[in-house]
Amino acid sequence: MSSTWAPGAAGTGFDLDHLPYGVFSLPGEDPRVGVRIGDHVLDLAPVAEIGDPDSELAAAWRTPPLNAFMAMGPEQWATARWWITEVLGDSVHAERTRPHLHPLADVRLHLPFEVADYVDFYASEAHATNVGRIFRPDGAALLPNWKHLPVGYHGRAGTVVVSGTDVVRPSGQVVSTSSTTDQSSTTDKSSTTDKSSTTDKSSTTDKSSATDKVPEHGPSRRLDIEAELGFVVGTPSALGEPVPTAAFADHVFGVVGLNDWSARDIQAWEYVPLGPFLGKSFATSVSAWVTPLAALANAWVDLPAQEPEVLGYLATAQPAALDIEVEVELDGEVVARPPYRTMYWSPAQMLAHLTVNGASLRTGDLYASGTISGPERDQRGSFLELSWGGKEPFEAGGRERTFLEDGDTVTLRYSAPGTGGGRITLGEVTGRILPARTL
Amino acid sequence: MSSTWAPGAAGTGFDLDHLPYGVFSLPGEDPRVGVRIGDHVLDLAPVAEIGDPDSELAAAWRTPPLNAFMAMGPEQWATARWWITEVLGDSVHAERTRPHLHPLADVRLHLPFEVADYVDFYASEAHATNVGRIFRPDGAALLPNWKHLPVGYHGRAGTVVVSGTDVVRPSGQVVSTSSTTDQSSTTDKSSTTDKSSTTDKSSTTDKSSATDKVPEHGPSRRLDIEAELGFVVGTPSALGEPVPTAAFADHVFGVVGLNDWSARDIQAWEYVPLGPFLGKSFATSVSAWVTPLAALANAWVDLPAQEPEVLGYLATAQPAALDIEVEVELDGEVVARPPYRTMYWSPAQMLAHLTVNGASLRTGDLYASGTISGPERDQRGSFLELSWGGKEPFEAGGRERTFLEDGDTVTLRYSAPGTGGGRITLGEVTGRILPARTL
Repeated sequence: MSSTWAPGAAGTGFDLDHLPYGVFSLPGEDPRVGVRIGDHVLDLAPVAEIGDPDSELAAAWRTPPLNAFMAMGPEQWATARWWITEVLGDSVHAERTRPHLHPLADVRLHLPFEVADYVDFYASEAHATNVGRIFRPDGAALLPNWKHLPVGYHGRAGTVVVSGTDVVRPSGQVVSTSSTTDQSSTTDKSSTTDKSSTTDKSSTTDKSSATDKVPEHGPSRRLDIEAELGFVVGTPSALGEPVPTAAFADHVFGVVGLNDWSARDIQAWEYVPLGPFLGKSFATSVSAWVTPLAALANAWVDLPAQEPEVLGYLATAQPAALDIEVEVELDGEVVARPPYRTMYWSPAQMLAHLTVNGASLRTGDLYASGTISGPERDQRGSFLELSWGGKEPFEAGGRERTFLEDGDTVTLRYSAPGTGGGRITLGEVTGRILPARTL
Repeated sequence: MSSTWAPGAAGTGFDLDHLPYGVFSLPGEDPRVGVRIGDHVLDLAPVAEIGDPDSELAAAWRTPPLNAFMAMGPEQWATARWWITEVLGDSVHAERTRPHLHPLADVRLHLPFEVADYVDFYASEAHATNVGRIFRPDGAALLPNWKHLPVGYHGRAGTVVVSGTDVVRPSGQVVSTSSTTDQSSTTDKSSTTDKSSTTDKSSTTDKSSATDKVPEHGPSRRLDIEAELGFVVGTPSALGEPVPTAAFADHVFGVVGLNDWSARDIQAWEYVPLGPFLGKSFATSVSAWVTPLAALANAWVDLPAQEPEVLGYLATAQPAALDIEVEVELDGEVVARPPYRTMYWSPAQMLAHLTVNGASLRTGDLYASGTISGPERDQRGSFLELSWGGKEPFEAGGRERTFLEDGDTVTLRYSAPGTGGGRITLGEVTGRILPARTL
C-alpha cells in the first residue's frame, strides 16, 4: 500500500486501504458527500470537478446522500476508489486537494444514505440459541426453520438514524407485573418472551392466564441493544428476478455498523403473531461511514459448516463469512466482544433469500445481520443475553447491570483486516439513552 | 353539490364529490399529477399555472408522484380541493381547461406516491377469529394482545405496485407434504399455519415432528389475496413525538384500495418467530387513485364497541369507523363483499399505536388495515377464509376453488357514501397471476 499525504492518516484504521464514504456538513452549509482519511473528511465533488467538471462521479457526489453514487454500480465504485487512492496517495495532488480536506472536529455527520427498505435478519446461531434457552429452557433451542433459511423481517426504514443521535426511551404497551412476581419463572416467560419463542404457553393454550394479562401504557423497562452489521444495497434489481448468492458484490455497496435498539417488554407483548413492531421501530442507529466492500477484500473467511445442507439457491462459494471483530462499550467500558466470523448465515445467503420470491432491491436497501453473538459468555451482543434475561446481571462500571438506564451511552466498534497489512476501523455506532417523554 | 361540465362525470362515482388524485402519463411522455373526474383525468399543473404560474400547488403538482403535494398539509389539501371544484364545477373554466382533460383510455396510470414505510395491521375481528379457528380449533380464537392493541408489522415498501401490475407467482421455501397426508389435520396445521398462530405445536414442542420437516424450493401452491384498505400519510411527524388519535386528519391524506398478496405456504414455514416476510414481500397492489379524506366526510360511522376498554392513547371520538363496502371479484365474478365498517380498530387508533413509541411518520408512509372480513361467510376478504384453509372449497366460475391459479385475475372494488347524496367509487385494485418463473 502506498502511503497518504493526508495528515496523520498513515497507519491508522482510516488509511488508504479503507476510505469509507459518508455525508458531512460544515457549519451553516448543506450536506456533502465525503470520504474519510484519518481524522479528516475529503469533500469529493469539488475535487473531482478539478480534473473533470463533467465527470459522472462528480455529478453523483454533488447530490448527497450516497444513493446516487451507490446506484452507479461496481465499475464506477472501483473507478472512484482508484481515483481517490490516486488523489490522496500521490503528493502531487496535495496542494489543490488540501483545501477540501476538513478535520472531523469541524463537521457534522449525517445519515450517509437514504434507507429504502430495512430488513433485519437473525443469523447468529449463538444468539438464536441463547434466546431459545432463556425463554424455552425445556424446548429445542432453535426453531425448525432456523437452519434451513435465514429468518428475517422488515423493520422501519424511517427511523434509521445516524450514530450520535440520542435515543429517547420508548413508551408503549407493557404487561403489568404488579399482580405477579417478576422473579417467578412463569411470569418471566410471559412478560419477556423474545424473538425466538412461539411457545408462550400462557398466551395461547392457557386461557385463564392469557386473559388475565392487563397491559399498561408506560416507558419500556427492558431497553436493550443489538450489536449488528448492516449491508447497504447499491445496485437495484428487477421485480420478479431473484438475486443469486454469486451476485452479492454486484449489488452490495458496503457495510455499516448497526445497533438495533430493542424494547424487550414492548416486543414481548406485541409480537405474536406478526413479529416485532414497536419494540424495534423507535430507532435503529447506523454508523456515519459506509465501508466499501473493496476495503474488506482481506476480511473474508470460511463460513462455519452448515448442516443440514442448504437448498440450492442458498449454496455459496467460500470464503463467504467476514472476519469482523466487534466491541460493545457501555459508558466507555467494553462489556462484550462479539466475533462476526461466527455468524451462521452469510451476507450473500441473506441477500439471495431476501429476493428468492422475486422481491426487488432498491438503491439504499439496508439489511442487517441480527444480533452478533459468539459462543462465549463475553461474546454476546445484547444485554438480554449478557444478563441472561435480566436474571444474571453482569458487571460494568463497578455495578451490576441488566438493561439500559437513562443516561447510558452505548458504542459499538468494529474492525477488520485491511488490505494493507494492518486493520481497518469501521465507523462506530454510538447513542445515549434519554429519559422517556412525559406521557 | 354543483354539477361538473366534465363530460359524462355527473352522477358517477367520480363526480365533484370525489376527485381522487393519481399519476398518469400520455404515450411517450413523463408522468404527471392528475385528478380523476368521470372517465377523464385532469392534468393539474398546467391548469393551475393558467391562474398563477408561481402557485405553490402548481409547483408541487409539477413534481410527481403525489408526495410533494401530500407533504403540504391539510390547509393546502383543502385549498386544492376547493380550487379543483371551482375549475371543474363552473363552466366558465371549461374552454381553457378542456385541453388538459385526458380520457383514461389514453393514459397509463402509475404508482400514485412513493411509499416510505409500509405497515400492515390485522384490525378485523372476524378475520383474526376465522384464522384463529382455522389453525387453532382447540384454543382461543384471538390471542391475548389482540383486543388491547392493533397488531401490525412492517412490510416491504419497495414492492408496492400499482393496480394492473401482473403478479408473478412467487417461489420460496415450502415444507414438503409428500411424506405426509395433506388432508390430515396435523399436517394441515403445520403446513398452513397463518398469521394468528403461536401454537404450531409440531414446530416447537414436538421435537420429532419439528426436526422431520424438510423444506423444498418451489412455487407457492397456496397463493392468496388479502382485501384491505390503505391509509396514506401526507404530513410527517417528528421522531420521539407520538401522534394522538385526534391528529389523524392532520397527517393522513387519503385512502387507497390494497391487495396484500400472500403465499400462505411460504409464510407458514418462515414466520416464526419474527413474522411474515417472503410470504408477503413479493407484491402488494394499491389502487391508482388516492381518495382524499374530504371525499369520505359522509362515510364515518361509529366504531363497534371495544371491550375491554382501550388504553388512553387509543381512546377516540366517534364516529371513528368508515362505511366502505368492498367487493372481491375473481375473474369477473363477485365472491365476497367484506364490509369495512365492521373493523375493530379504527384508522386513527392504528396511527396512534404506530407512533406511540415515538416512531416518526414520513410523507408517503402507507398503513393498511389487514384483511377486511365481516362476520358472514360471504364477507370474507381472503381465499384462506373463503375456503376455510383449503378444506371447504367455494364456488366460482362454475367450479370449486381454493387458492389462486395461474391466469386468475382478482379485482377489489370499493365504494362509500359521497358528500353529494350518492356513492363514490374508490379506485379499484386489480392484478393477474402469472406462472412462476423457471427456477
